[in-house]
Amino acid sequence: MNHTPLNVALAMGPGVAPRIFPPSTLAKLAPDLLLLNQEPMEEFTSQSSRDILAATDILITGWNCPVIDQPVLDAAPRLRYILHAGGTIKHHVTDACWERGIRVSTAAEVNAIPVAEYTVAMILLANKRVLQLARKLHLEKEAVEPDRAFPDMGNYGKRVGIIGASKIGRHVIRLLAPYDLDVVVCDPYLDDAAAAAIGVERVGLDELVATSDVVSLHAPSLASTENLLHAGLIDQLRDGATFINTSRGELVDQDALLARIQEGTLYAVLDVTTPWILPRDSAFYSHPNVLLTPHIAGSLGTELERMAASTIEEALRIARGKPLLHALHAKDLAFTA
Amino acid sequence: MNHTPLNVALAMGPGVAPRIFPPSTLAKLAPDLLLLNQEPMEEFTSQSSRDILAATDILITGWNCPVIDQPVLDAAPRLRYILHAGGTIKHHVTDACWERGIRVSTAAEVNAIPVAEYTVAMILLANKRVLQLARKLHLEKEAVEPDRAFPDMGNYGKRVGIIGASKIGRHVIRLLAPYDLDVVVCDPYLDDAAAAAIGVERVGLDELVATSDVVSLHAPSLASTENLLHAGLIDQLRDGATFINTSRGELVDQDALLARIQEGTLYAVLDVTTPWILPRDSAFYSHPNVLLTPHIAGSLGTELERMAASTIEEALRIARGKPLLHALHAKDLAFTA
Repeated sequence: MNHTPLNVALAMGPGVAPRIFPPSTLAKLAPDLLLLNQEPMEEFTSQSSRDILAATDILITGWNCPVIDQPVLDAAPRLRYILHAGGTIKHHVTDACWERGIRVSTAAEVNAIPVAEYTVAMILLANKRVLQLARKLHLEKEAVEPDRAFPDMGNYGKRVGIIGASKIGRHVIRLLAPYDLDVVVCDPYLDDAAAAAIGVERVGLDELVATSDVVSLHAPSLASTENLLHAGLIDQLRDGATFINTSRGELVDQDALLARIQEGTLYAVLDVTTPWILPRDSAFYSHPNVLLTPHIAGSLGTELERMAASTIEEALRIARGKPLLHALHAKDLAFTA
Repeated sequence: MNHTPLNVALAMGPGVAPRIFPPSTLAKLAPDLLLLNQEPMEEFTSQSSRDILAATDILITGWNCPVIDQPVLDAAPRLRYILHAGGTIKHHVTDACWERGIRVSTAAEVNAIPVAEYTVAMILLANKRVLQLARKLHLEKEAVEPDRAFPDMGNYGKRVGIIGASKIGRHVIRLLAPYDLDVVVCDPYLDDAAAAAIGVERVGLDELVATSDVVSLHAPSLASTENLLHAGLIDQLRDGATFINTSRGELVDQDALLARIQEGTLYAVLDVTTPWILPRDSAFYSHPNVLLTPHIAGSLGTELERMAASTIEEALRIARGKPLLHALHAKDLAFTA
């Protein structure tokens, strides 16, 4: 039995650690694990980085972590785990890591939580036409008859269509369970039994788009999902429907979306666009039927503490001989963001 | 055993029935109950109303129902139940009804649902500073660094203070259970055991106000709750806190509230104000830290179907010899809206 603690090192972009890993969070690694560097590596080429890598068993990575390629792996002969305090490892975990059998864990599950929470709030506001009615009151400054303005308003009996049974999509579905809403899901990798297990009806994308009062996009950004919501589907969205995008702008035909919005037949809540940032003259900035937010649905502010806590917890599980809670496998990459 | 169905009559203000009780909903009364009037009584004095009252066992009432006083009761010798498709019966159910032992049921429990849903959405937006960040992006039309603007943003580890363990307050607490929020409640009629049973910590009003990131008001509007949030308490709200009012404007010192808002140290989400409607020059209409909505948190639009369905279900329970689900008793009146 080996009582020497495993060595942990940190690697991430400049300025990331103070936001995600304050000293009080890192202190939780002791005494089960030994932290080699309080200041994260921002590159893997200097002699000091090489010295740290030579002793590292577990690498905790954050946003903008430098790429972990073969030369880095060669410098890190003891490295067995990469634990990422973020949603996607595609930018820094290379094929060489998978080939060496390094085990990888991410905070994607934890990062799904705030995105799902943002989405649930927006669904509730959309069905009730809250922001539209607030705007009407703001402009008219007199009594508004809400359900004369929007006879179909209300969070009762409305259909919510979730595109993508991803971690985020599934958490949205869980959070919507206590509401009187008809939630349907579309996902090519979900069969009827799996849909029933998460408590929703599975429908095709055409049916989802044509029958939902709110459509929320939670598919991963992949080559195969680019332009998933093409102009033909955008045109099929119900009059008065609300489209929510917290995924990626590239999944949506943005011109078709804008056309429906400017026609006055569609509302949109957009946390992402193409490009991000939009040009200053984009109509998305000012149209009253659009709520545009600056890519905030994911973990930010205090929510970063949850992401860090989850990553530290994974490291401690290794120290205690427990299986990883959020292991990611090479075969998952084709389906995840 | 009596196989003659009990007789049901409708009474409510002009224009209410088409919004709440469409014919398809009323059709559900048959065959267990007999509906005496498809067109609701809007007064109780005409001969046709007298004829209906004479045969009524169950009176289903809606908003703006005329007052049910002793002369009305004298005209309704068979009347045993008043089922109200609304939140409060104080405007039409008189002491004479209670004295005669008429049983009363309301849709207050059902009407609590949309108010709680509105509140949950607003809490999630407030902690994440979503509307403030949307406004910043709208105005600046360039990249926004969200957690540089609001370092404390996020729905993780924040305290939510619920004033009033009312039907609405309790439903907010239930709906918040899946979130990583610290929910505390203040209610003079709730003891520690009852608070533990609903899964929250009970604190005093001073502590709630001084320690919560979001404060949401769910106390009933009573003589004893007028100015409950007096200027001294408003001043104790944390800098950067959000105050949500879906209850009544009269419970709050509105001048003190506006002073904090104009000072820039407080956000507010107000579905009610004093007076309602505010004068056109009120600063509440235009201050960016205020979201003012036109009294929409309660049942509206499709949500009225749920209120009607609940009332029809109560009537059918009577026909089937089951106890009322939402009985209201005279002794409850001192504590309810």
